[in-house]
Amino acid sequence: MVWEQVAKLRSMTVFEERIEALKKEGKKVQIDAFLVTSEKNMRYFAGFSTLAIERFAGIVIPVRMGLPVVIVPRLEETKAKKSPLRKIISYSDSESPALLLKKVVKELKLEKATLGIEGTLPFKFYQMVVATSSKIRTKDASNLFSQLRCVKSEQELGMIEKAADIVAEGIKAGIEFTKPGETELAISNQIERTIKESGGESVPFCLVLSGPNSALPHGETSNRKVSEKDVVLMDVGAVYEGYYGDLTRTIFVREATRKQREIYQVVAQAQEAAIRRVKPNIRAEEVDAAARRVIEKAGYGEFFTHRTGHGLGLEVHEEPYIVQGNKTTLRPGMAFTIEPGIYFFEKFGVRIEDNIAVSQTKAKMLSHISKELLVV
Amino acid sequence: MVWEQVAKLRSMTVFEERIEALKKEGKKVQIDAFLVTSEKNMRYFAGFSTLAIERFAGIVIPVRMGLPVVIVPRLEETKAKKSPLRKIISYSDSESPALLLKKVVKELKLEKATLGIEGTLPFKFYQMVVATSSKIRTKDASNLFSQLRCVKSEQELGMIEKAADIVAEGIKAGIEFTKPGETELAISNQIERTIKESGGESVPFCLVLSGPNSALPHGETSNRKVSEKDVVLMDVGAVYEGYYGDLTRTIFVREATRKQREIYQVVAQAQEAAIRRVKPNIRAEEVDAAARRVIEKAGYGEFFTHRTGHGLGLEVHEEPYIVQGNKTTLRPGMAFTIEPGIYFFEKFGVRIEDNIAVSQTKAKMLSHISKELLVV
Repeated sequence: MVWEQVAKLRSMTVFEERIEALKKEGKKVQIDAFLVTSEKNMRYFAGFSTLAIERFAGIVIPVRMGLPVVIVPRLEETKAKKSPLRKIISYSDSESPALLLKKVVKELKLEKATLGIEGTLPFKFYQMVVATSSKIRTKDASNLFSQLRCVKSEQELGMIEKAADIVAEGIKAGIEFTKPGETELAISNQIERTIKESGGESVPFCLVLSGPNSALPHGETSNRKVSEKDVVLMDVGAVYEGYYGDLTRTIFVREATRKQREIYQVVAQAQEAAIRRVKPNIRAEEVDAAARRVIEKAGYGEFFTHRTGHGLGLEVHEEPYIVQGNKTTLRPGMAFTIEPGIYFFEKFGVRIEDNIAVSQTKAKMLSHISKELLVV
Repeated sequence: MVWEQVAKLRSMTVFEERIEALKKEGKKVQIDAFLVTSEKNMRYFAGFSTLAIERFAGIVIPVRMGLPVVIVPRLEETKAKKSPLRKIISYSDSESPALLLKKVVKELKLEKATLGIEGTLPFKFYQMVVATSSKIRTKDASNLFSQLRCVKSEQELGMIEKAADIVAEGIKAGIEFTKPGETELAISNQIERTIKESGGESVPFCLVLSGPNSALPHGETSNRKVSEKDVVLMDVGAVYEGYYGDLTRTIFVREATRKQREIYQVVAQAQEAAIRRVKPNIRAEEVDAAARRVIEKAGYGEFFTHRTGHGLGLEVHEEPYIVQGNKTTLRPGMAFTIEPGIYFFEKFGVRIEDNIAVSQTKAKMLSHISKELLVV
């Protein structure tokens, strides 16, 4: 048996397992079938994704009887056929996806069903769904999807780790490239190029913020030239096999003032404290509190203006959010960023971001790049 | 008066005009207010955009009485304040956008209104809308928005032209860079870098397809090395001030066979025929037919497997679609691509794509790059 076949069989099991887990959850909350429509969830349950914004694409997954049915525009049929799911129907531009969906609903006897749909389902497709039958009902099942997805398999964690490694390569190249006179944009391009050459599928964001720009958590890479004594913050995300890595490093050009060194150490300690706090069965907000406590104690609480982290997976922001008020219990297999920061408006900012997974006992690092204070 | 103030006043007028035009359309179809939520439409009507996928953002535009109200998450407030619209309200992560929307609906006396919403409105936000009042009604107003947007002002056409110029710079650099041994990815990176250095805001796609890959209209840039006798197809889109340019050029490496030369000429003639057909008051499908006729006459009809073009603007695909069945009447100010192609599966493909606007009498070229057959 050649390797591809092994891989195919294995992934078939993965997708079957995911669909079974979804059905199980559906039964608990009286959902009779699911309609999966987002790019990420289609990839998660069917192993392929389509960017059907103009045209409808989705998977109908009946909870009790019948096989899942994939509906795609004809143009996407070749892609869809790579899926381990076997029932694939497509429609041409002169056919109506609404009629096709109606037929599927009828065939699966879902005319009186409660359909679990996604919160992102566009209104125009929602209208198609409710038009399939006067007795069909819908329920937002977004939470259910995100609960399933936020606990990762070993294989998925491997993808995130690989993505984080690729981002690390990019950031190292960016650090190497940084010197007075280079623009933020040139450094960003260098990072992006390295990531693509290292096997990154895409680079959805590649922020390089220098000088006072580093103090803007939502700043944008500009043509600003880096100069001596600047702080340079690099926040970069890359995708590998659909999974995100997301790292931030902050460096200093030519010199770091005593104040900057102090702030860097506080942020690094806050990050360490949060990482040490991670273990199964604590609440997500406790990890946030661990980072926040260190920064507050140092007297900079008001300058840590965002959450400590966010889940990572097929999306760059997903559950579990590491934020005050999130009572979600951490479980082995969850993966997220830990990224405290301190920002002095119009002066400078420091953020350090790594990616971790929850193991049976503690945090397992998924990113491997030095966070020693660096002056270039 | 400094230049920024002039620009601000001028654009204020632009946005006011657009909102007035929308209201006028609303009155015709008994819509009492609009809820604008997509990134592009927010940019079109309010001069700023937010990528509020997780969080709600929108503009409520009452048709008869009252000022438009912008609702954004607190994080986006600074961005929103750059808008010429003056009523901006924001909510923090601990507040509810649903309550805020309800309040706005009440203040504008829209409890019994018919609300024109966008087809892309996510289901979770649709639920928020219908929960504002038991008597509120919704209507998909997508067509109305796209009808307004598809006729461009001189200023908008200038942006598209500039975007197309930037893409042209990128493609020229890619052509310069193409030689046996280079990978598709390396050529693509070269194009992307040049575009960014030329002032392109972003490069949403940058396809380089060589050899048999050129025959896949939906192919993806790969690590394939270009070799002698290859056809190389470059299809690139870039954004300038929010507006898209989108061009394709197909070149030959070291030599072009007689067959390839023939195909290239047929595609070029088809494109010319379509461009010559363009004028106000004809139907979009007539432009498609003009290109198709040339290719069919040459005996390659079955190998021209896609539409002739699509509208360009804040989106890379928008009205008017240049496709069979589209009876939309062309009007001065519309802008679109003209991009016929011929594809021989597993052999090679040729596509030539330019961007044009409809003037008072004919097509006005928005892209300016040679389409002479090129062997590099």
